[in-house]
Amino acid sequence: MSQIERVAIVGGNHGNELTGVHLVKKFQQYPNLINRSSFETLALLGNLKAIEEGKRYIEKDLNRCFTNEGLQNPQLSSYEDTRAKAIQQILQPQNQPFVDIVVDLHSTTSNMGLSLIFCDTYPLLLRLGAYLSSINPLVKICINQQSKENGFLRSLCELGFVIEVGAVAQNILNAELFQETEQLIYAVLDYFEGYNQGKFPQISGQLTIYKYIGTIDYPRSDRGEIQAMIHPQLQFRDYEPLNPGDPMFLTFEGKDIFYEGTSTVYPIFINEAAYYEKGIAMHLSQKHQEVV
Amino acid sequence: MSQIERVAIVGGNHGNELTGVHLVKKFQQYPNLINRSSFETLALLGNLKAIEEGKRYIEKDLNRCFTNEGLQNPQLSSYEDTRAKAIQQILQPQNQPFVDIVVDLHSTTSNMGLSLIFCDTYPLLLRLGAYLSSINPLVKICINQQSKENGFLRSLCELGFVIEVGAVAQNILNAELFQETEQLIYAVLDYFEGYNQGKFPQISGQLTIYKYIGTIDYPRSDRGEIQAMIHPQLQFRDYEPLNPGDPMFLTFEGKDIFYEGTSTVYPIFINEAAYYEKGIAMHLSQKHQEVV
Repeated sequence: MSQIERVAIVGGNHGNELTGVHLVKKFQQYPNLINRSSFETLALLGNLKAIEEGKRYIEKDLNRCFTNEGLQNPQLSSYEDTRAKAIQQILQPQNQPFVDIVVDLHSTTSNMGLSLIFCDTYPLLLRLGAYLSSINPLVKICINQQSKENGFLRSLCELGFVIEVGAVAQNILNAELFQETEQLIYAVLDYFEGYNQGKFPQISGQLTIYKYIGTIDYPRSDRGEIQAMIHPQLQFRDYEPLNPGDPMFLTFEGKDIFYEGTSTVYPIFINEAAYYEKGIAMHLSQKHQEVV
Repeated sequence: MSQIERVAIVGGNHGNELTGVHLVKKFQQYPNLINRSSFETLALLGNLKAIEEGKRYIEKDLNRCFTNEGLQNPQLSSYEDTRAKAIQQILQPQNQPFVDIVVDLHSTTSNMGLSLIFCDTYPLLLRLGAYLSSINPLVKICINQQSKENGFLRSLCELGFVIEVGAVAQNILNAELFQETEQLIYAVLDYFEGYNQGKFPQISGQLTIYKYIGTIDYPRSDRGEIQAMIHPQLQFRDYEPLNPGDPMFLTFEGKDIFYEGTSTVYPIFINEAAYYEKGIAMHLSQKHQEVV
């Protein structure tokens, strides 16, 4: 890409993740905070009805509605399907300039710190990741290549990505995480400004990335009821190594359940509230060093 | 009271507070865990529909439906009003034996640790509190005398009380808190067993209690939108002293707002997710020493 011309910042893709909701409201009130001289920035709220009701979604998860099929299917008429089409129309209008980057703001009950989740290992984004990590070592970079088939909002652009912060409960604001996320967004915008002006900081060397390899569900009964909890030794340990034989779950009766894989993995999204209904106790990732 | 004959343990009064829900399910599956020789113990789920849907409530907060007026008003027909009458019928049936103690299990996004909330300073409960504090110094005792007018479930008996644990997000389980709550319940039941048998541990001396004195709301706009967050210096500091002039809120613009009271108070329920809609940023309490 020669120049970045338009960037969108989306908050409240999930209505009960308040950090993004209130950051976007702040940016709408004070657009100077996100204006940069070399590109346009748009701040947009995602699931308006769900934000109003303090829920993740009304009828279905908006952040699973951005599949090509779904967006092109006029039969799909749930609130979220309709809203997904409206958001696509704003961000990617036909025969009009569209956004080059979508920054989708999320929060999680998992201890994800300040994470960026990219759809793939695009050089521009890896260099952004290396830059952000250099100014804040707590920043983590994940790659999840299943963005398009899952219908994530970020998949509207090749360079779309998520900022995922936690641990924070649904429907509350944590002032410290709010401010850290805000600073991270300004650093992202400054980086794009530098990129456009040919003077972005050249970070070279190795970047640690965590590549999504799959999910693990809670142990469940025949009726689908969970039978165990995240093990206390794994709780809040996102991004730390999980080795074969390490405790993973604790049953309600107090029995340990161990990780039975054959190699070390790095769990993330451990104990995310919204994933219980999706059959996900955690994501598993592999740790790589990427040369940037 | 000469003898305690029946104790009820209620979980899921709020459907998204999973610790209580899964503890009660465990007790229903293994009743021996809560059986004691000198009294009956009943384990009961509160808001059945809300538990199924993973919400605090369906139409209105069940834990505000136990006013005398509400329970006697046949016009009130919301799911929760109906359920409140059914629960009253189970716990306090007319012309039949009724429960002497209700233990109502809750969890909170506030850092309440292991708190017991009593409706008043009844000697039996204060001695229970002193006993529990002696075996686990993390146990805290609160008094909220507004239980009846607020329609709390615990107000069904004079000796009803809440066990409130946190910080834990809504709709997740924290294994460590689950196990600590479970052990606390067994200690409560053992204490009642000892009481009935005339051999309960005699704890004497002083007990620290936190008496509810009021609530404080978030700063809000004319339209009711919150304009500030709990200050980072106050977040997770439940039960710690808040002095006049201490920072209390942080606006979205980054401005500190200070506590303007005239004396030191002890905030609890700081940043509880479900209280945003109730206009409550925290409860304020006063710290007392009570002789037991």
